[in-house]
Amino acid sequence: MLKVAVVGASGYTGVELLRILVGHPEIEICCITSRQHEGLPINTLFPSLSGFCELICEPLDVAEISKRADLVFTALPHKSSMEVVPGFLEAGCKVIDLSADYRLKDRDVYEKWYQTHSSPELFTTAVYGLPELYRDQLLSACLVANPGCYPTSVILGLAPLLEEQLIDPQSLIVDSKSGVSGAGRGVKLGSLFCETNEGFKAYGIASHRHTPEIEQELTGLANSTIRLNFTPHLLPVNRGILSTCYADLLEDKSSEELIELFQQRYVDEPFVRVMPGGELPNIAYVRGTNFCDIGLVSDQHTGRVIVVTAIDNLVKGAAGQAVQNMNIVCGFTESMGLGIVPTFP
Amino acid sequence: MLKVAVVGASGYTGVELLRILVGHPEIEICCITSRQHEGLPINTLFPSLSGFCELICEPLDVAEISKRADLVFTALPHKSSMEVVPGFLEAGCKVIDLSADYRLKDRDVYEKWYQTHSSPELFTTAVYGLPELYRDQLLSACLVANPGCYPTSVILGLAPLLEEQLIDPQSLIVDSKSGVSGAGRGVKLGSLFCETNEGFKAYGIASHRHTPEIEQELTGLANSTIRLNFTPHLLPVNRGILSTCYADLLEDKSSEELIELFQQRYVDEPFVRVMPGGELPNIAYVRGTNFCDIGLVSDQHTGRVIVVTAIDNLVKGAAGQAVQNMNIVCGFTESMGLGIVPTFP
Amino acid sequence: MLKVAVVGASGYTGVELLRILVGHPEIEICCITSRQHEGLPINTLFPSLSGFCELICEPLDVAEISKRADLVFTALPHKSSMEVVPGFLEAGCKVIDLSADYRLKDRDVYEKWYQTHSSPELFTTAVYGLPELYRDQLLSACLVANPGCYPTSVILGLAPLLEEQLIDPQSLIVDSKSGVSGAGRGVKLGSLFCETNEGFKAYGIASHRHTPEIEQELTGLANSTIRLNFTPHLLPVNRGILSTCYADLLEDKSSEELIELFQQRYVDEPFVRVMPGGELPNIAYVRGTNFCDIGLVSDQHTGRVIVVTAIDNLVKGAAGQAVQNMNIVCGFTESMGLGIVPTFP
Amino acid sequence: MLKVAVVGASGYTGVELLRILVGHPEIEICCITSRQHEGLPINTLFPSLSGFCELICEPLDVAEISKRADLVFTALPHKSSMEVVPGFLEAGCKVIDLSADYRLKDRDVYEKWYQTHSSPELFTTAVYGLPELYRDQLLSACLVANPGCYPTSVILGLAPLLEEQLIDPQSLIVDSKSGVSGAGRGVKLGSLFCETNEGFKAYGIASHRHTPEIEQELTGLANSTIRLNFTPHLLPVNRGILSTCYADLLEDKSSEELIELFQQRYVDEPFVRVMPGGELPNIAYVRGTNFCDIGLVSDQHTGRVIVVTAIDNLVKGAAGQAVQNMNIVCGFTESMGLGIVPTFP
Repeated sequence: MLKVAVVGASGYTGVELLRILVGHPEIEICCITSRQHEGLPINTLFPSLSGFCELICEPLDVAEISKRADLVFTALPHKSSMEVVPGFLEAGCKVIDLSADYRLKDRDVYEKWYQTHSSPELFTTAVYGLPELYRDQLLSACLVANPGCYPTSVILGLAPLLEEQLIDPQSLIVDSKSGVSGAGRGVKLGSLFCETNEGFKAYGIASHRHTPEIEQELTGLANSTIRLNFTPHLLPVNRGILSTCYADLLEDKSSEELIELFQQRYVDEPFVRVMPGGELPNIAYVRGTNFCDIGLVSDQHTGRVIVVTAIDNLVKGAAGQAVQNMNIVCGFTESMGLGIVPTFP
Repeated sequence: MLKVAVVGASGYTGVELLRILVGHPEIEICCITSRQHEGLPINTLFPSLSGFCELICEPLDVAEISKRADLVFTALPHKSSMEVVPGFLEAGCKVIDLSADYRLKDRDVYEKWYQTHSSPELFTTAVYGLPELYRDQLLSACLVANPGCYPTSVILGLAPLLEEQLIDPQSLIVDSKSGVSGAGRGVKLGSLFCETNEGFKAYGIASHRHTPEIEQELTGLANSTIRLNFTPHLLPVNRGILSTCYADLLEDKSSEELIELFQQRYVDEPFVRVMPGGELPNIAYVRGTNFCDIGLVSDQHTGRVIVVTAIDNLVKGAAGQAVQNMNIVCGFTESMGLGIVPTFP
Repeated sequence: MLKVAVVGASGYTGVELLRILVGHPEIEICCITSRQHEGLPINTLFPSLSGFCELICEPLDVAEISKRADLVFTALPHKSSMEVVPGFLEAGCKVIDLSADYRLKDRDVYEKWYQTHSSPELFTTAVYGLPELYRDQLLSACLVANPGCYPTSVILGLAPLLEEQLIDPQSLIVDSKSGVSGAGRGVKLGSLFCETNEGFKAYGIASHRHTPEIEQELTGLANSTIRLNFTPHLLPVNRGILSTCYADLLEDKSSEELIELFQQRYVDEPFVRVMPGGELPNIAYVRGTNFCDIGLVSDQHTGRVIVVTAIDNLVKGAAGQAVQNMNIVCGFTESMGLGIVPTFP
Repeated sequence: MLKVAVVGASGYTGVELLRILVGHPEIEICCITSRQHEGLPINTLFPSLSGFCELICEPLDVAEISKRADLVFTALPHKSSMEVVPGFLEAGCKVIDLSADYRLKDRDVYEKWYQTHSSPELFTTAVYGLPELYRDQLLSACLVANPGCYPTSVILGLAPLLEEQLIDPQSLIVDSKSGVSGAGRGVKLGSLFCETNEGFKAYGIASHRHTPEIEQELTGLANSTIRLNFTPHLLPVNRGILSTCYADLLEDKSSEELIELFQQRYVDEPFVRVMPGGELPNIAYVRGTNFCDIGLVSDQHTGRVIVVTAIDNLVKGAAGQAVQNMNIVCGFTESMGLGIVPTFP
C-alpha cells in the first residue's frame, strides 16, 4: 500500500481528494493536515466522511510527514505550496501539487501574475499534469503540477484542433462558466449564498490568472504564440465548469468530420467522452466524476467551430486529475479509484 | 383610463404583464384570456396576484375583446399571434405583440426560421419595439413587434460600437445565458427542476431563432451584412439574461473611452445603466426590473472589446419592454409603471 | 417630508429598507450609516440601487444624525442597538429598532438568552411592532421593537386560534424554515453557497433565541404560560420563511370553519392574506412583499389543526414591517410604500 | 453472475438503479425496459451513463424478460406494478417492487388510499423491505415491497423510541421535506424549475398516501394503534428528505441517553449513522448514498424529543434500499455495490 498524505485537507479540494482516496484500493491515507482545524477529526468538519475517513487534522510539519508518506498531495493556495514542496521532494516524497506554483514554465510570467517565486529551479522538474498531453513524462515525474480547473476544460477542448492546425490560433475566444466551489472554501462575501444564488456575472475579464496557463499550453500545441480572450463567469451551482470555445476554421470541415477527429484523438482516453453529433455536454452529466465531456458544432454560416466542454471543477479540474496523475506516477491502472458513475439528477 | 387586454395571460410573460400593469396609474385591465384556464380567476393560478388582480380568464374572442379594449398585448406563441393580430388591428385596437411574428422584415427569412406567414403585409406596419433605437417610429405605431429577450440584450450591448464603426462587423461572437423562465411555462421535460437545477449547458448552437433577429438589427446599425455566432445557454435561475459579446476593435480604445461612449449614447435612456469602469453587470441587480445594465472591458492584449449586458428576460426582455412601448405609443411618460426597484438578494 | 435615517445600511435588512423607502412618497432618506463601508456610495455595494439611492455611508454618530433625522431605523445586531437607541430617543427621534434588544419584556429572560442589558428601563416604553396585535399602542409609540422574522410568521398563524381558545396551549409545535438571508450578510462559513445550496438541515433545536419571543407573545394571547417546540431549518433560497404550526384542537372544527375564523380576524388587515380552502401558502407568492399568507387544515384523523404561514423574512419579517410601523407611528396610510406586487416566478 | 432486469428504467428511480447496479460486482443487467423510449439506448436519455450502461430500452414483455432474468426490479408507478409482478413471480423471478402496491398489509386500507388491488393474495408473501426491521424475513423473500421514501426516513427515526416504549404513541408529529426528484420524472407543471426554485410549500397535509404506510409500520412497533400527523413539503433541491419528528417523552431522558440508545440499536447497521450530541443531519451529507443519518435532541423545556433524519430519497428512499434488499435476498454482502462516499459539496 502506498502511503499518501493530503496537505490542506479542509478545503473543498482537500475533502474531494479524501472522498476519492478512501475508495482507492492501493493506497492508505497516512496523514492529513489543516492549520485551521488542527486536532479535529476531519469528519466533524465534513460529516459526509463519517465511516470513511475519521483522521485527525495535523499541523503541516514537512519533516515529520515526509517520514510517513511516500506521496504528498499539496492542496494549498499558491505561495503556501512553494513553501513546502521543495522540502517534500528533498525528503524523497513524490508530490502532486494542486496549486498554481509549478504550472508555468516562465518565471517572469509567473511573477507577473502571482508573486516572487522561491524555487523556480523546479520549473523544469515539474511535469504539467494533463495526462492527455503529457502521459509519457508523467510516468517518471516526481513533481506533478496539477492543472488549473479552467485550463483543463479549455485545453482538452482545443487540443485536437490545434494539433491538426485546423483553426486560426489568433482567433480563439473562450467563454467559461464555473460553479461556486471553484472559489474555494475560504470565507468571503462573494461566496455567500445570497450573493451568488439566482445571480450570474462575468469576472476577471482579460485579467484572470488562468489565462497565461492556458496560453502556455495552447502555444505549445500550436507552435505559434497564442493570445486569447478568456472570460470566466460565476455559475450558481456547487460544481462544474462549462467552457464554450470559439475559433475560426482554416478549412471547411463539417461537424461530423470534426467529431470524428475528436473521437480518434481521444479514443484511448479513459476520461474524455466525445459526444455524438447533435448532443452537447451538460455539467450535470459529469458531476462527481473525472470525465471531460466534449461536444462541438461547425457553423457553416460564419466559418467558425464552437467546442463545448464540461468537467467537474473539483474532480477532473482538481482532485480527480490529481489521483489520475498519482496512478500514472505510481504505476497503477490509470483509472483506479476513479470509476465513479455520475449521479443524475 | 386606457383599457387594455392581455391575451395569453397564463404564461410567464402574461402574468408578468399583469404584475406590472396592476401598478400602472393610467390603464385598466379590461380583459385577460387563457384557452387552458378559461373560467378561472387568474389568482387561483397565481396566488401571488391575490388582492391585485382577480379577473376571470376568458376565451380568445377577437371581436368581443376589440369592443372593450383600446390596446391589446398578445402574449402568445409565434403563429398563434398572427392568427389574431390582424383582427385586432382592423377593429381599431393598438397591438403590442410579444411573439416573434412581426419582428423580421424579410418574409423569406421568417419562413425559413419559423413557418408560412399569413399576414406578411403587416411587416412594414410593425415597428420593432426597441425604444432605444426606434423611439420616433414608435410614437405613431399601431403594431409594435416587441423584441426577443436575447436580441434586446445583444443589440443594446453592441449598438454604440456599431453606430460609431469601432468594431469589425464580421468578428462578432455572442455568448448568452438565460434563466429557465425564458423557456416559458409550457410543460416539457427540459424545463423540469431536476433536469436544469445544478446543471448548465449550451443549446441551439448555430441554430437559434433569435439569430436572424439579432443579425437584422445589427446589420441595420452597421450598414454591412452581419453574420455572427450566437450561442445560448440555460442557466439554473428563474430570471435573467447575461450576454457576453466579443468584437475586434478597429481602433485602439481604452475601457474608459468606450464606457464614456456608452454613457453618452444612453445618457437619456431611463432603462439603460452603464456601469463605471471596473464594475460588471449581474443579473441579480436587474431582477424584476426593466433595466439593461452594461459593463465592458477593452482588452489590449488581444485588441478585442468584451461587452457584458444583463436584463431580466421577463421584463426588459418581454413584459416590461412591452409596457414601455405602450407608454410611448399612448403618450404616457415612458417609465410610467416601471419604476420598480430591484430586489436584492 | 419626514427625514429618516437608516443606521446599519449595508446589511440585507438595511438595503431592503432602502429598497422600500426610495419608493415611499412621504419620506426622505437623510442619512445612511455603515461602519465597514464608511465613505462609499451605497450603490457601489449594491449596484441594484443605482439610480435610486446613491448616498454615502456615514459613520454612526448619534448626536450628528439626531440633528438631521426625525425617525431612525436601527438595523444593527442586538447589543449594538442598545448602545445607540437611548441616545436617539433622548434627542427626540422616533426609533424603529430592528434588533432583538427591546422585544422582550422580562429583563431576566433577555439576559438569559442574550446578554446584560444596559437600558432595561425602555422595556415598558417599547411597543412590540406587530400591527395586527398592537396597532393602538403603536399610534403613540416613540420606540418600536420590530418583531423577529420567525415570531412574525408564528404569531400571525396562531393568534386567531389562541384568542378564541380553540387550541390546547400546551400542545404547540412549530416547524419553521427560513431562507439564507435570515442569517444576515455577515461573512461566515455556514452562509457560503456551497455549504447551503442543495442542502437542508435543522439548527438551534430547543435553543433558538426567537423561542422566548414567540412564547412571550403567545402567552399574552392565551392567558396561560406557553412552552412550545420551535425548530428552525435552513432553506436553500434567498428569501422566505414558511412556518408549519401544529396544535391540538379543543373542539371539533372543520377546515372551512377555521378558515372563516381567520378571514374574519384578518379582514381589515392589509398584509394578511388568508387562503381559501384547499390552497396552501408558498414563499414564492410573497417574495419581495409585506404579505403574510396563511393556509390551514383541520385534521379529523388526529384532532389537530395545521396552520401554514409564509412571509418574506426581509420584508414582513423585517424591513417591510418596520416601514409599516413607521407609517402607523407617523400617521401615514399604513400600506404607503408597501404596495409591491409579488414577482413570480 | 445474477441476471437482473430493471423494469421502468427511464424514470429517476430507474436510472438511479442503473447507476448503482453498473458498479455491483455480482450482477449483470440483462434487460431494461421503457415504454416511452423503446428502442433507444439508455445513455441517449441519460448521457451521464455513457461508458457505463448503453443498453437499449425494451418493451415490457413479462414472459420474455422472465426467461432472461433471475431478479426483476419493478420501478413502475403503483397500479402498473401489480399488473406485472404476479407474472414475474409465477415465472420464478424474484421481484423487488419499488411501487406502493405491496407495502400495505390491509387490502381495505390500500383500496381506500390507492385503487382496487388485483393481487391482494400477495400481501402475505411480500416482505416490507426495510432491512433494519425485517432482515430475517427478507433472507427468504421472493417478493420485496421496497418502502416509500418518506416512510423510510420516519420509521428509522422513531423505531428505537417506540420499541423501548419511551414515547407516547398518540403524540407523534412528523414534518418532512423532500427534494423535487421525489415527484418523479413525469412532465407536470408542479415539477417545473420556475414553479419550485426559490419556493417552498407544504402539500398533501393530512392526506398524503405515505401516511397509512408509516402508521402501519409504527403501529407494529408500538403495539398500539398509531395515528400521526405527517406533513410533506417540497424542497427546491434535486435530492434528499429531511424528516423532523416530534414526540412526547414518557420518561425523562437526556439527549445523551437517547443518542446512546440509538447508537446501540443501530450499531450493526451498515447504513444508519447516528450523529454524536450536538450534531444534526443535513441532506447534503448523504447525497448519492444509502445512508440514513440521525440526530436528536431531548427538550427538557417541553418534555419532547425531536428526532431528525436525513436520507437521499432516490437511494435509501428507493434504488439503494432496493439493491440492499437484493443483496439480502440473494445472499450477497449487504453493502455490496453501495459503498458510495457522499460527494460534498
